[in-house]
Amino acid sequence: MATDPTIRPTDVRMKGFARRWTVEQSLEWVDGSIPEPLIEHIQLEEAASRVLAEDICSTIDVPHFARAMMDGFAVLGSDTAGASAYNPLTLRVIGESLPGNPFSKQVTAGHAVRIMTGAPMPLGADAVLPVEQTVIEDNQILVQGEVAPEKHVGFPGEDIQSGTVVLQQFRRLRAQDLGVLSSIGVGKVPVLQKPRVRLVITGNELLPPGSKPAEHNICDANSPMLAALIERDGGTVIHPGIISDNPESILEALQDDADIIIVSGGSSVGQEDHAPRLVAEHGSLDIHGVAMRPSSPSGMGTIDNRLVFLLPGNPVSCLCAYDFFAGRAIRQLAGLPAQWPHRSQVLPLSRKLVSTVGRTDYARVSILDGQVEPISISGASVLSSTTRADGFVIIPEDLEGYPRNAEVTVYLYE
Amino acid sequence: MATDPTIRPTDVRMKGFARRWTVEQSLEWVDGSIPEPLIEHIQLEEAASRVLAEDICSTIDVPHFARAMMDGFAVLGSDTAGASAYNPLTLRVIGESLPGNPFSKQVTAGHAVRIMTGAPMPLGADAVLPVEQTVIEDNQILVQGEVAPEKHVGFPGEDIQSGTVVLQQFRRLRAQDLGVLSSIGVGKVPVLQKPRVRLVITGNELLPPGSKPAEHNICDANSPMLAALIERDGGTVIHPGIISDNPESILEALQDDADIIIVSGGSSVGQEDHAPRLVAEHGSLDIHGVAMRPSSPSGMGTIDNRLVFLLPGNPVSCLCAYDFFAGRAIRQLAGLPAQWPHRSQVLPLSRKLVSTVGRTDYARVSILDGQVEPISISGASVLSSTTRADGFVIIPEDLEGYPRNAEVTVYLYE
Repeated sequence: MATDPTIRPTDVRMKGFARRWTVEQSLEWVDGSIPEPLIEHIQLEEAASRVLAEDICSTIDVPHFARAMMDGFAVLGSDTAGASAYNPLTLRVIGESLPGNPFSKQVTAGHAVRIMTGAPMPLGADAVLPVEQTVIEDNQILVQGEVAPEKHVGFPGEDIQSGTVVLQQFRRLRAQDLGVLSSIGVGKVPVLQKPRVRLVITGNELLPPGSKPAEHNICDANSPMLAALIERDGGTVIHPGIISDNPESILEALQDDADIIIVSGGSSVGQEDHAPRLVAEHGSLDIHGVAMRPSSPSGMGTIDNRLVFLLPGNPVSCLCAYDFFAGRAIRQLAGLPAQWPHRSQVLPLSRKLVSTVGRTDYARVSILDGQVEPISISGASVLSSTTRADGFVIIPEDLEGYPRNAEVTVYLYE
Repeated sequence: MATDPTIRPTDVRMKGFARRWTVEQSLEWVDGSIPEPLIEHIQLEEAASRVLAEDICSTIDVPHFARAMMDGFAVLGSDTAGASAYNPLTLRVIGESLPGNPFSKQVTAGHAVRIMTGAPMPLGADAVLPVEQTVIEDNQILVQGEVAPEKHVGFPGEDIQSGTVVLQQFRRLRAQDLGVLSSIGVGKVPVLQKPRVRLVITGNELLPPGSKPAEHNICDANSPMLAALIERDGGTVIHPGIISDNPESILEALQDDADIIIVSGGSSVGQEDHAPRLVAEHGSLDIHGVAMRPSSPSGMGTIDNRLVFLLPGNPVSCLCAYDFFAGRAIRQLAGLPAQWPHRSQVLPLSRKLVSTVGRTDYARVSILDGQVEPISISGASVLSSTTRADGFVIIPEDLEGYPRNAEVTVYLYE
């Protein structure tokens, strides 16, 4: 937790913010406020990209029996000593071993068992003679090459030994990890629960997505955007629909059973901005007003141990504040790295990028011929600027901006 | 299509491959075999990361009405001329305009309407005086600053003008794109259909994932791995369960209603490898046997215009052949870039990485102290090597490998 005193309800005023927190303070608040993640057990088939809640230790050897690594014949290696195309030796074929359908008797000197890759080695045999080194004649083979004992045999535990930790706690499961888990007999996987994130979209002017904008109403652009971002960050979205812009409805939504509450709209200090006052009254509004552009009217706090993020309703501000703060919280609660999830590139600026000391800037940029081109429209309501942009550059608060040709990190929108 | 003649059923033989195709030829076959994608219309809320089937052109201005960009008062800018804290001018407040609830009358000289950010500008008013520049007294305000006409007003089409193409065909939709689509009133989005990929997992030794490996049976590691990879690449998985290793069952599965068929296991030239012969008999087996390690017993062809990929049953080979060929086909049919979807890094090798001219190698590697460390276990059955690895390096067929300190591209497992 940041050391700043909590904001009292009466501090939430009409005329601008009493003070502004820095982005750094706000990030500290986020990182210090993440609750302990919860654990659940899910089907292996559902576990791709989920985060392991504990170390997974194999209780078996993989494979758990010796098996052929080639198609050919299971033999005693010593029976092939001296064999070649010019000196073929004869072995009698007494059966076959197929995957899942092994040869049940013993192989003794002078005998061979036809065997397929992956099939269990029969008792007595200690090597696999590849089919390419044989001539097959009725119920016998002419051995045309030597194989040493153990050759082309996969031994128990060759892939995984019983007692080995195969995957560690907090690993985000890869596709092949699911294969490994299956091979050691794990059907249910202990993973961190996905944070349940309640969207609270307010605004009496808003129509639900899919409506035609009409008269003085506009369509809610933020809920589909936020929902996609929350999914990206490992969260589950709870969004029952647009909330009436009155304190009762908003309070009810703020007290929903979720891990994280994201309010979009009414996050500032206006008379109609109910959410900050409600958080201050019913919980703790720890940050309100951040020295950044866009998104300065952002807030953060808690109600009953739920994290609450107040995001501005302007779509670009909403995107920026989500990515800076709310997404970071969701990722951490999901067990994912806190930092920006975007791929990034370091490239030179085609022209200077201006900011102001004391404020962190989120500048949308295009990449053109390997150079970073700032997008001139800075309006927080111009969401289409983020679809024209290839990504964004962060200008820290201690800089007035970057000069032309400065190498900057571009976080790529994806 | 590659120019190589199709393989006849009688060419599929027990003793090794009659010839091997190069990886390059196989990739050419993949790239030349992608069918036209199909289009579907889906709900906006489901469209994140989907690929647009056509250009989206806005039929409206966004916003479609003039609106306030600040909290304050809608005024005639000319009414504020000369106003300052030392020379406050008085305007009478005649109402308010809230988002979704506009002021319905006209504003004339000497009057002001309280207005919130996003609310429609009332007729007559041409500027917004920020609340910070006022002192509020009952039903009038003292104006303490000037605002020029148009100041703090967002005009129609400022974000998006009617007739503009806002998003182009084949764009993979970002979170904010969904916001833009919502704001222009799009509820159903035309996207490319996700390729339907039928998994055909064969092997009489296989138990379904979640079973305990017992006796001579092992658990199917490939279906959960492949399913996760197919999802990553934009496909939808059809997997009704493990298929009995007999020609009838496999043929039935090969003729399933899907865009792409992936067979895992029985892909080589052994007597029990039914799938290659079935593809050759009932369709066209265009590639069988690829000069690569692992995964050389891979095959590709078509049955009734469905692409069929024959992947080795050994899990590492299966992963490698999927990523080289099947995944590339799925991505392209899904409208995504063909190339490796992995993030990559260029780093020096800590020791030499050996290969053979004439063969493409897929080498699993770790990254240690900024150096690329080859993982020594090369067995195609050791899936745990791909969970210990951080990624892989491709050694092209014209190289004998890379010397120590060579800079190589590592594709990172994710």
